[in-house]
Amino acid sequence: MTEATAVDLDFGDDGLIPAVAQDADSGEVLMLAYVSREAFERTRETGRAHYYSRSRDELWEKGATSGNVQTVEEVRVDCDGDSLLYVVDQEGGACHTGYESCFHRTADGEVVGERVFDPDEAYE
Amino acid sequence: MTEATAVDLDFGDDGLIPAVAQDADSGEVLMLAYVSREAFERTRETGRAHYYSRSRDELWEKGATSGNVQTVEEVRVDCDGDSLLYVVDQEGGACHTGYESCFHRTADGEVVGERVFDPDEAYE
Repeated sequence: MTEATAVDLDFGDDGLIPAVAQDADSGEVLMLAYVSREAFERTRETGRAHYYSRSRDELWEKGATSGNVQTVEEVRVDCDGDSLLYVVDQEGGACHTGYESCFHRTADGEVVGERVFDPDEAYE
Repeated sequence: MTEATAVDLDFGDDGLIPAVAQDADSGEVLMLAYVSREAFERTRETGRAHYYSRSRDELWEKGATSGNVQTVEEVRVDCDGDSLLYVVDQEGGACHTGYESCFHRTADGEVVGERVFDPDEAYE
């Protein structure tokens, strides 16, 4: 993998670009998070999904604490260069609540996703 | 479909929440755009995907010009209530460039998506 980027990325006024993580096998949309240029480069260098936490204001390797890492198969860029798609192999579940996907509820509050790990054990 | 929303949504400082559109059949991630509260309500009322265009600064029904509308099967909300997932039946292609998905390129610039319509005809 190389750091060279053929597609220009628009990191916006705040230096962040939204990234969607999708499970490479199931096609499930796992989460949406934000990526700084450094997070993007670390993702490309390591093959592990990195993001930038807006609440903690820091670079963040997904799964560094929980073990639920994302191995990145492909990074895609949208037509405007202002959003990313990480196609990943997800270890365990993507959601800190224990669900496979952060999008495990409908807007009406119905749970439609699957719980795949116990968050109390993962984040002790 | 009802306007009632059981899940609290965080529309952030700018009144917008990012929404991922995913094809209900193929599972393909089609696009990422932004949704105002009005766009969210119109989506729920009509069953057609509405967004808010940041560049044109206006509510926008996807496909109103091109005919490439999105019929929304399900609206999901992520764990933090600050992003949405529209599971849609996509008419034609989602991307204004004629591709099925806006995410039709890798970060290295390789085209991996499929072109499904001629944008010159759709947007004449």
